[in-house]
Amino acid sequence: MLKVGLLGAGRIGQVHAVNIAGNARSSLVAVSDMHQPAAEKLAAEYGAEARSSDAILSDPAIDAVLIATSTDTHSDLIEAAAKAGKAVLCEKPVDLSLERAQQCLKAVEGTGKPVMIGFNRRFDPNFAALKVSLQKGQIGKAELLAVTSFDPAPPPVSYIKVSGGLFRDMMIHDFDMANFLMGEAPVTVRAVGSSIVDPEIGAAGDVDTAVVTLTYADGRIAVIKNSRRAVYGYDQRVELLGSDGLLQAGNMLENTVVRSTVDGVVSGKPTYFFLERYMPAYAAEWQAFVDAVLDGAKMPVTLKDGIAALAMAEAATESARTGQAVDLKG
Amino acid sequence: MLKVGLLGAGRIGQVHAVNIAGNARSSLVAVSDMHQPAAEKLAAEYGAEARSSDAILSDPAIDAVLIATSTDTHSDLIEAAAKAGKAVLCEKPVDLSLERAQQCLKAVEGTGKPVMIGFNRRFDPNFAALKVSLQKGQIGKAELLAVTSFDPAPPPVSYIKVSGGLFRDMMIHDFDMANFLMGEAPVTVRAVGSSIVDPEIGAAGDVDTAVVTLTYADGRIAVIKNSRRAVYGYDQRVELLGSDGLLQAGNMLENTVVRSTVDGVVSGKPTYFFLERYMPAYAAEWQAFVDAVLDGAKMPVTLKDGIAALAMAEAATESARTGQAVDLKG
Amino acid sequence: MLKVGLLGAGRIGQVHAVNIAGNARSSLVAVSDMHQPAAEKLAAEYGAEARSSDAILSDPAIDAVLIATSTDTHSDLIEAAAKAGKAVLCEKPVDLSLERAQQCLKAVEGTGKPVMIGFNRRFDPNFAALKVSLQKGQIGKAELLAVTSFDPAPPPVSYIKVSGGLFRDMMIHDFDMANFLMGEAPVTVRAVGSSIVDPEIGAAGDVDTAVVTLTYADGRIAVIKNSRRAVYGYDQRVELLGSDGLLQAGNMLENTVVRSTVDGVVSGKPTYFFLERYMPAYAAEWQAFVDAVLDGAKMPVTLKDGIAALAMAEAATESARTGQAVDLKG
Amino acid sequence: MLKVGLLGAGRIGQVHAVNIAGNARSSLVAVSDMHQPAAEKLAAEYGAEARSSDAILSDPAIDAVLIATSTDTHSDLIEAAAKAGKAVLCEKPVDLSLERAQQCLKAVEGTGKPVMIGFNRRFDPNFAALKVSLQKGQIGKAELLAVTSFDPAPPPVSYIKVSGGLFRDMMIHDFDMANFLMGEAPVTVRAVGSSIVDPEIGAAGDVDTAVVTLTYADGRIAVIKNSRRAVYGYDQRVELLGSDGLLQAGNMLENTVVRSTVDGVVSGKPTYFFLERYMPAYAAEWQAFVDAVLDGAKMPVTLKDGIAALAMAEAATESARTGQAVDLKG
Repeated sequence: MLKVGLLGAGRIGQVHAVNIAGNARSSLVAVSDMHQPAAEKLAAEYGAEARSSDAILSDPAIDAVLIATSTDTHSDLIEAAAKAGKAVLCEKPVDLSLERAQQCLKAVEGTGKPVMIGFNRRFDPNFAALKVSLQKGQIGKAELLAVTSFDPAPPPVSYIKVSGGLFRDMMIHDFDMANFLMGEAPVTVRAVGSSIVDPEIGAAGDVDTAVVTLTYADGRIAVIKNSRRAVYGYDQRVELLGSDGLLQAGNMLENTVVRSTVDGVVSGKPTYFFLERYMPAYAAEWQAFVDAVLDGAKMPVTLKDGIAALAMAEAATESARTGQAVDLKG
Repeated sequence: MLKVGLLGAGRIGQVHAVNIAGNARSSLVAVSDMHQPAAEKLAAEYGAEARSSDAILSDPAIDAVLIATSTDTHSDLIEAAAKAGKAVLCEKPVDLSLERAQQCLKAVEGTGKPVMIGFNRRFDPNFAALKVSLQKGQIGKAELLAVTSFDPAPPPVSYIKVSGGLFRDMMIHDFDMANFLMGEAPVTVRAVGSSIVDPEIGAAGDVDTAVVTLTYADGRIAVIKNSRRAVYGYDQRVELLGSDGLLQAGNMLENTVVRSTVDGVVSGKPTYFFLERYMPAYAAEWQAFVDAVLDGAKMPVTLKDGIAALAMAEAATESARTGQAVDLKG
Repeated sequence: MLKVGLLGAGRIGQVHAVNIAGNARSSLVAVSDMHQPAAEKLAAEYGAEARSSDAILSDPAIDAVLIATSTDTHSDLIEAAAKAGKAVLCEKPVDLSLERAQQCLKAVEGTGKPVMIGFNRRFDPNFAALKVSLQKGQIGKAELLAVTSFDPAPPPVSYIKVSGGLFRDMMIHDFDMANFLMGEAPVTVRAVGSSIVDPEIGAAGDVDTAVVTLTYADGRIAVIKNSRRAVYGYDQRVELLGSDGLLQAGNMLENTVVRSTVDGVVSGKPTYFFLERYMPAYAAEWQAFVDAVLDGAKMPVTLKDGIAALAMAEAATESARTGQAVDLKG
Repeated sequence: MLKVGLLGAGRIGQVHAVNIAGNARSSLVAVSDMHQPAAEKLAAEYGAEARSSDAILSDPAIDAVLIATSTDTHSDLIEAAAKAGKAVLCEKPVDLSLERAQQCLKAVEGTGKPVMIGFNRRFDPNFAALKVSLQKGQIGKAELLAVTSFDPAPPPVSYIKVSGGLFRDMMIHDFDMANFLMGEAPVTVRAVGSSIVDPEIGAAGDVDTAVVTLTYADGRIAVIKNSRRAVYGYDQRVELLGSDGLLQAGNMLENTVVRSTVDGVVSGKPTYFFLERYMPAYAAEWQAFVDAVLDGAKMPVTLKDGIAALAMAEAATESARTGQAVDLKG
């Protein structure tokens, strides 16, 4: 049984609390949050204790921590937790600064403690099944990947300003998806972006609509489309052309009802946003982490994976700014 | 908070235990089972006590019982529980004997206690959404209903022999679905059936493939198709033609992956069986029961609903045997 | 090159004219119609001559006739044409009277001339592909067939009165589809029907909504649903459960465009009516007839097939009237 | 009635011959081909005459010519035909040389004769319906376009060598589709490509897999994916995100049959190649040309449209070669 401390009791922390408490191999021991009442409320729901982060990290009875705090604290907490001997699952992104993330990696490697980054989409049943099919060779060799990832509505501009920008905040998931499916990092990143959804986003120095092209050493190509607004719901699809066929993973729908009238044939919309779509993915992610820690297996998503995606986000940010292709360092 | 005793710790009892324990408005206090170790094991998982049924029924601290025992005990337990002042949620069917079920109804009516029958499919998100669309008038007046309900594989013949037959054991769900969607009972039942899947089922006096036609006072028609074997998975669909359109509720699929190769375009199969397909329905059913009991609202599915479906099953059994149409008594 | 006379220049005659003239192995020589200007107009479009039916039948240069006149003339014209040595393709139904149709069969058998009945749906690419899959054994042995056949809107009551009723006029196609797919006639027919779409149809002695159950000697079952009104378009589907799987053939859609908005996901409706849906089927039907005549092969749909479907229509009409099951004579 | 001369009796010329001869407002008068027997054979099928191109162009009784010859002859024939007073429908591309195409435009403008370029996909019922929906404002303002266009199998390398390269030969259709849907040309073209399908194609100086990103003056973005190999068939899809929703136009399928077995749910593949998919588009294209000429309306696709697409192809070719973004001249 893995004894777990949860750092961060916000929206995503609450999602993780359900899975930590509901998992047969883990128990939620303690919760911390900058806002103490939030920690107390969440802890109470699961019979856990509200504590400070320091108290959690220094408690030898706690085996693992899940870091669901704000991004600017991730690197510090990962380092502190690993040094305190905890296994770590940290929400994405590792950091907004690639340099800081790389320092974090060095610090952590010294400890030998397992650190996993929360790229939950790898555990989505649809994307995971697509990967299994690919690995079985059912479409031969992968050649051309297309990832579509649209949010239902843009976040407030106040959030945009501290987010690190679309490439670090939103597309970072898709960069990791590309790495997950293509099995390696690309060599060159080309990005274009604009603030066509909301000019305020542009005024804040960010884009809300973007297309990134990734090219690989052996000639394979990937393309990622992002938009901050798809009014019909969270649109999360992957499509991979291979030498022997095509794999597509589509959206989950609200329900399977189809209504045919004189106005057309109407079916359900995609589930609204990431909590609805990825709830099973969060549970599977946690299961994978617990199993890896308890069974001494390899982390399914590593800190290096987190840094690889961050490097692509940084390259895309630069490419979108300069209009030039950016080569990734090997 | 509703304090609940669970009678029956078998497969379906275990499903209910998850929902009772996981619901914010109910807690699982005690579990009973003919096979004591099964009760103990399940109780231990949820911090409940293993007791006898009698001990549960006589405990004034228990507000409600969920009856998930074998069918032949349902009527007795419903009566005993209602007399002991408990709210009751009982798995379908009420009884294999229509007469006994009607006695049970009389006995329960005297107590004034709420009894709900577990027709879980009414709470399936897809069928529920279809009903909402119908009630909103989106297809006008219902005219022609078609229910398709295929199991992935037939049960053992030993089970068939004590099941009451396909119409009472399997199609009873579809009779209730017809009542749920058409809003009233039909006037006449016509059934045909055969044992084409497995002659052993025929030798046991039952059918494994059947079609029932229901006709209503105002000319509406419903048709139900059942088969004990659909090798591709649990096939559960409803289709309702109305004066202004058609509503269809389809299967949930394993995943959304589509693979296109020279051999064709392959998508996921329906989820395998009722546990996979109807897990959300069981949770919603329990929520509806808890809400109705705690808020003093009307039971969403009543004992009378259970008896109405049973009367249709009895009529269908007779019709399939005699080849004649059978009129239902008003 | 098959030289063809077309009897009947109405809506369906015009469809056939396109195919006769457009086929590389046939040419349209002459057209007749009770309404002479209609024959002249159609003949002129294809460089054919307008003549009387008698003149067409007595012309030794004409090899085959296509009978697209009103139903009450079919038997007489089939007989006359066969006696005149013509190959015959006659629109369905053979006759409204089963007895008269059987006389016609006897008369024709004496001539040895090939007669095909125009059950065009056997040649629909979707239903034909379903049959091919079945014949390849891809779903094992057929067990339970369901045919859905809804018209977009009811015909005028004046048409209903001379149509012979829904079972002879509309469902006869579905009876033939059942025979086509099940490979034999059923032993018993059970029908229910009502005039829920339009009470005027009921006042005219007919039904507009009906369900027929067919049972076969070996226990297989088929069910057919008909409605005269599906406001979203012509709904023509077949679904066949077998021991190793399920085959479904669906509608052709107006186009493949899917529109996702806050109101839902909207796709195209089925093509509107039989001319839109079955145009490729009419062309394939004509090709099959021409090939069979010119190559001396077996007719793909025979006069006996037409009579078998008519016998089922008659039995269904009686069953719907009496409420009793009707056994077909072997 | 438009009297038409067809220049070129190859595969695509034969497609056009069917439509010219089958259209109620046009007749096929004469056919030419470098290979005289091919012209004779095709002419004979439609009761037309085989002639030289010069004889067709100099015949005052001929109103229009359809140019379906090899690409290197297009510009010369367009000029000659326009100067001879013919209306012209010419297959794409206008030319492999943008400069030569621009000369051709100047020469033609002097004649005042209507010239249409055969971008048949604009007339595909699916893409045309998508455009209608967009024009009706059903998804608000277009923001992000994605065009997927995969051939089933690469052409022989001998063809590749004279094709002008993937961007001029294959993606030119998609450039025109982008112009058709976005309503204007982009300002910048970014292309990546590789020869991952067949190294021989790379050795011939071309690519077989490519992604092009187009950016527009107002911030809109389009992305086009091409591959020379999709083993499951011709994959032709368009997807357009707007401020109020998403439009998707998908493939036409072989048939609507769906087969569910233990191995999964199998549906039909896309129709195999452009002849199967775009036959209705070719007929609609011809109808649009005939109507525009006879009714004196504006050409639905102009020579300028052909040149705009060619300019994008040239820019993409350069971008793929240099790795740099290429700005289009206004």
